[in-house]
Amino acid sequence: MDNLIEASLALHSKLKGKISVENKMEVTSLDDLSLLYSPGVAQPCLKIKENKEAIYDYTWKVNTVAVVSNGSAVLGLGDIGPEAGLPVMEGKAMLFKAFSGLNAVPLVIDVNGPDEIIAFCKMIAPTFGGINLEDIKAPECVYIEQTLKKELDIPVFHDDQHGTAIVVIAGLINACRLVQKNLKDAKVVVAGTGAAGSSIIRMLHVYGVSNIYAINNLGVVDKTKRESYDFVVQELCDYLADVKVGATLSDVMQDADIFIGVSLANLLSKENVAQMNSDAIVFALANPNPEISYPDAKAAGARIVGTGRSDYPNQINNVLAFPGIFKGALDVRARQISEAMKIAAAEGIASLVADHELTEEYIIPTVLDPRVVGVVAKAVADKAVETGLSKED
Amino acid sequence: MDNLIEASLALHSKLKGKISVENKMEVTSLDDLSLLYSPGVAQPCLKIKENKEAIYDYTWKVNTVAVVSNGSAVLGLGDIGPEAGLPVMEGKAMLFKAFSGLNAVPLVIDVNGPDEIIAFCKMIAPTFGGINLEDIKAPECVYIEQTLKKELDIPVFHDDQHGTAIVVIAGLINACRLVQKNLKDAKVVVAGTGAAGSSIIRMLHVYGVSNIYAINNLGVVDKTKRESYDFVVQELCDYLADVKVGATLSDVMQDADIFIGVSLANLLSKENVAQMNSDAIVFALANPNPEISYPDAKAAGARIVGTGRSDYPNQINNVLAFPGIFKGALDVRARQISEAMKIAAAEGIASLVADHELTEEYIIPTVLDPRVVGVVAKAVADKAVETGLSKED
Repeated sequence: MDNLIEASLALHSKLKGKISVENKMEVTSLDDLSLLYSPGVAQPCLKIKENKEAIYDYTWKVNTVAVVSNGSAVLGLGDIGPEAGLPVMEGKAMLFKAFSGLNAVPLVIDVNGPDEIIAFCKMIAPTFGGINLEDIKAPECVYIEQTLKKELDIPVFHDDQHGTAIVVIAGLINACRLVQKNLKDAKVVVAGTGAAGSSIIRMLHVYGVSNIYAINNLGVVDKTKRESYDFVVQELCDYLADVKVGATLSDVMQDADIFIGVSLANLLSKENVAQMNSDAIVFALANPNPEISYPDAKAAGARIVGTGRSDYPNQINNVLAFPGIFKGALDVRARQISEAMKIAAAEGIASLVADHELTEEYIIPTVLDPRVVGVVAKAVADKAVETGLSKED
Repeated sequence: MDNLIEASLALHSKLKGKISVENKMEVTSLDDLSLLYSPGVAQPCLKIKENKEAIYDYTWKVNTVAVVSNGSAVLGLGDIGPEAGLPVMEGKAMLFKAFSGLNAVPLVIDVNGPDEIIAFCKMIAPTFGGINLEDIKAPECVYIEQTLKKELDIPVFHDDQHGTAIVVIAGLINACRLVQKNLKDAKVVVAGTGAAGSSIIRMLHVYGVSNIYAINNLGVVDKTKRESYDFVVQELCDYLADVKVGATLSDVMQDADIFIGVSLANLLSKENVAQMNSDAIVFALANPNPEISYPDAKAAGARIVGTGRSDYPNQINNVLAFPGIFKGALDVRARQISEAMKIAAAEGIASLVADHELTEEYIIPTVLDPRVVGVVAKAVADKAVETGLSKED
């Protein structure tokens, strides 16, 4: 780890910016200037003035995404502010380019209130084909994304919410395939109701799962106490099963088929895992310290364990989702990224593990699997067209 | 011209974006991911959290500029809106890269009021080393830039105001050298008091010129009627010479040494030029149609004529200024671009024409002269350091 610290600082200091803006052709003559800048550039301007959609024919909007963050919830570091968040957003932009070929522009902004972030995104919308919200704290992030989804006609996607959720669903589809359970009938416990947790619960509901339990830092969520929760958890109450008054973690873990943790380090004991149904599936994804370690979960009897780490099997990594999601959405100029498109993405990811490959240690493709982006993009694009969300229709 | 129209549309349609965002190293392994993204990226984040200035050591802020426009005054096309302005801003970004090596990000924004544009620029300031305002209509553009200059600690520069002014002053320095007049003693008439005109008048004043006259669409500016003008012209009144009541263009052109036009097509007659002093200098820069054509100005007796066009001698082109201005300012982390830095830039540009090269047809380097950016950058950087405007001091 000391090596990683030194190596990362040295590399960032050497690069001074992990990305750059480059010209797609050289500018070496006055003729080049006349074509690319004044006076020739007036022509595409006039075409776009006549018809705004022509912006996709003549500019980078067609394949360019903004990565927007105010630095209020960066990695596991918390609210470190926009400046300190920039290395992460540059890294995200790198991943966009490396995995999908899209241009991504990191924009760290000195903005706090959710309504100001919404206003900012509406201001920049003409420039970009889509907006990837990143590392914005919950529960505001949910309100911000839901508002922008309604008010903008370009896709807006908060990766911390939905990227994780999509890959979790992909993993669950394949885990259930392996243990021959029907995901829709499974008893699922989700620990965490923030950005990722709320999206996971919402996606499970849309997928058809009805036996869902949630726990957060206030304890097991009890829908009869709906009014005491923030607006995000209030919505989730619609998707949760009943619990007895004063239910504990142990109560809901009893006979659970699936546990998904996205927030609370060391929440889960070996005993909790032992309480679960046979063929238990445990995704312990809290970062940097998971709800239970991979070895402990296995030792306690979980059959399939997923983590957020690359040094154990079954890494649940957002990189499997967001590049293809945006590529697919931009390919067909989707107005938004719907729940159905997200589920299509999850099914696409899951489909890449063939029956004969599927094992307890391989339920999800690796992040470097080159097939992923294409399959996700196609699934997302097809679903957008099928459901009438493509602006090209 | 038909050829240019077709060629420009075809090229823009083929490129679909004249610029792209590229990775400065490949991402091919899990080790790459660990260094450039999670978990390694947390290290530069923490360094910047400790000390905000470390952002210049670890991110692209050190050499990246935003090109911000709301599309309210694009080229000669007027208020065509942000979408239609994007091809121009991409072109500007290309020029930044081609001439200075800096990264520039086009940001066309759906924003109208000047205070909203100010708010937007303050929001994005953490991401960028500088902000180039572009194609924002006057007089708001002056208020926007002056406010941001006070409230931000990164350089903010409205190229339509100051880029033109710097190159005009450079041209005047050399024109006066050739005709052996002292610019400070010259009688100067400026047509246009918008973005470019107001900056030219201000720079002439700072340079030491006192015999300045201005004309705009209301006629010759009369400082005794100060209250009837917009806030920009009110400021300019402090720098203008007295005129008689009801003075006309012809009145002020009488015995003028220098005419600079930046706004009114066909304003100047041959007779007006003939009224001027001997060795008259005429810069007719209105775009696309100048105040008087190059051939007409010469025929009427002007000794030195400058235009905005590349097909006549002495092209007054902003490209000579802004790449070096930003490069110099960013090289020393200047807090702002001061009047003194702009004059240093103008003197730097002028210095590139040696005494033995100086002719009526060559008073200013050509836009493709590779020496320009380095000389301007050094002049600007040195002046910033000398006047205590470098953050590195």
